[in-house]
Amino acid sequence: MAISEFELIKKYFTSNDRGEGISLGIGDDCALISIPSEYELAITTDTQNEGIHFFKNTSPFLLGYKSLLVNVSDLAAMGAKPYCFTLSINLPDADENFLEEFSRGLYSLASKLNLPLIGGNTSKGPLSISISAYGLIKKGCAMKRANAQENDGIYITGTLGLPAFAVDLGYRSAHICRLMEKLSLNKEYDSIFNHCYEKGMLIEDRCAFASALSEISSCAIDISDGLIGDLSHILKSSKVGAEINLEDLPKPEEFREYNLPDDYQDHLCLYGGGDYELLFTMNESFENRLNTLAHSFNVPVKRIGTIKNGTLELRKHGKMVDYREKPFEHF
Amino acid sequence: MAISEFELIKKYFTSNDRGEGISLGIGDDCALISIPSEYELAITTDTQNEGIHFFKNTSPFLLGYKSLLVNVSDLAAMGAKPYCFTLSINLPDADENFLEEFSRGLYSLASKLNLPLIGGNTSKGPLSISISAYGLIKKGCAMKRANAQENDGIYITGTLGLPAFAVDLGYRSAHICRLMEKLSLNKEYDSIFNHCYEKGMLIEDRCAFASALSEISSCAIDISDGLIGDLSHILKSSKVGAEINLEDLPKPEEFREYNLPDDYQDHLCLYGGGDYELLFTMNESFENRLNTLAHSFNVPVKRIGTIKNGTLELRKHGKMVDYREKPFEHF
Repeated sequence: MAISEFELIKKYFTSNDRGEGISLGIGDDCALISIPSEYELAITTDTQNEGIHFFKNTSPFLLGYKSLLVNVSDLAAMGAKPYCFTLSINLPDADENFLEEFSRGLYSLASKLNLPLIGGNTSKGPLSISISAYGLIKKGCAMKRANAQENDGIYITGTLGLPAFAVDLGYRSAHICRLMEKLSLNKEYDSIFNHCYEKGMLIEDRCAFASALSEISSCAIDISDGLIGDLSHILKSSKVGAEINLEDLPKPEEFREYNLPDDYQDHLCLYGGGDYELLFTMNESFENRLNTLAHSFNVPVKRIGTIKNGTLELRKHGKMVDYREKPFEHF
Repeated sequence: MAISEFELIKKYFTSNDRGEGISLGIGDDCALISIPSEYELAITTDTQNEGIHFFKNTSPFLLGYKSLLVNVSDLAAMGAKPYCFTLSINLPDADENFLEEFSRGLYSLASKLNLPLIGGNTSKGPLSISISAYGLIKKGCAMKRANAQENDGIYITGTLGLPAFAVDLGYRSAHICRLMEKLSLNKEYDSIFNHCYEKGMLIEDRCAFASALSEISSCAIDISDGLIGDLSHILKSSKVGAEINLEDLPKPEEFREYNLPDDYQDHLCLYGGGDYELLFTMNESFENRLNTLAHSFNVPVKRIGTIKNGTLELRKHGKMVDYREKPFEHF
């Protein structure tokens, strides 16, 4: 391929939506941005690697979309309004078909959020996408992991578990193949995998909702490593415990449709990860305002438990449940 | 390896130097930073991949140092004062020896610059280090590629060509092996390579000098892709040409010591890249102030030519030279 790094960047990654406050975008040593004086800048960075965060041969469109989504999800978890982003991409070769589709997926979300790409780099290497995203949040208004209070309600947006189910399907372990056969789903295996994998990557961003939410909640996290793992970060930072009711976990319609075993459903919701939904705590006196927000932003919200003194307790129909499995970790 | 991502980050990448203006560092969904109202934030991101930007088995200390250096070099090229940085690292496995040395190299530069690490992530994958660095620059004071003016002098800090010579040595092509034999250096090949490679990675940052320089220069770039390639960015952005005198190129003492052929020396200086020195233009009436700066920051500075109307012309002892080779590009 004769296309150079400079041509690549120009062709696929130069957008004209420079945006207010961006004094200098792509094309110099650095980008330059201004921050309004009453705001702080929220900064996050996340990497997606082939074979680790996504399967080989994943559609480049989905990949472009999700690489940005996981980053704006971190902004949402602080209540920050997305402002701009940078992209570093390692490619085995300068495949223009790949880049065109990747760029389309990336910009489908960036355009929706009115988010300019202000810089980045491309390099030769095994497929890896590293994005840094920047958001604005009024000083002192960020939702932080350390702010959960005893008796706060614990809430989740959307549903949990579908992305993890897709990953299990994709690995085609003996366990999941046996299960699918038992459920008489083995003939539809591929189409179920494709459906769940695609839906699990095209996750809706919660940015607009989260920005409004930060007025009534001061503690949130996005679920990347699984509900238990991410809730534990909140509990540890806030020095509190929690009670979670498993029957209240928001599950995708597909779990019922495919008739997945109940304990496997719970497992996917609790430990699966990759959901990029918001987990937040809030004084329950705000529940009316929360319902109004959820309605006006069309975001499903469900209460799954309560912040308590002590440790984390999981209950199902009132009975305590012992789940010892470790959350997903990258090593 | 039983060490998890969270433990890794905590053990090797949590520093206490949170720094003024950093409201929230590592440990939440985002970092939060404040920007003084008279400043803009300069943002840059750069990736170093094994086998592309550095040889396999490169010392992790050098790698940690250089991964940060290439980023602060972009800040210096705008005249921005380094403020903080994030780190995304892909590792084949959680090798603690590697991480300890890498972290030591990284912090040797970060500490010198008083630069807090505010966030990042680690993931499994082929060795790749992606850093984003942030700097403060007074509004309107950034040195930009588009600001070169006719009759400006063209200046270089430090020397050019040594990192590129090290890369040539490292590839051990038939060409370089023959050359080293001809120069009777084949017995010392390894020690010469090690010396040049290490020196070419432990490049001194130009941040403090650049920050002061921005008062007398308004146009700079750092040399990553080679003098010709990077000068061309300035000329294109500023819509000007230039005359460069090859006999004025600042060459490392090693070139004379090893008695490298003159045209090979020129080639390394012009097209080698990886120098991370500053190339800047300035009205020559400021040369006295420049000399004072260079002296007080102990930074060698050399004038290599002049901005002209027209195209880029290279001269050696007054005679025009035609160098057609393309600059280093990543694809």
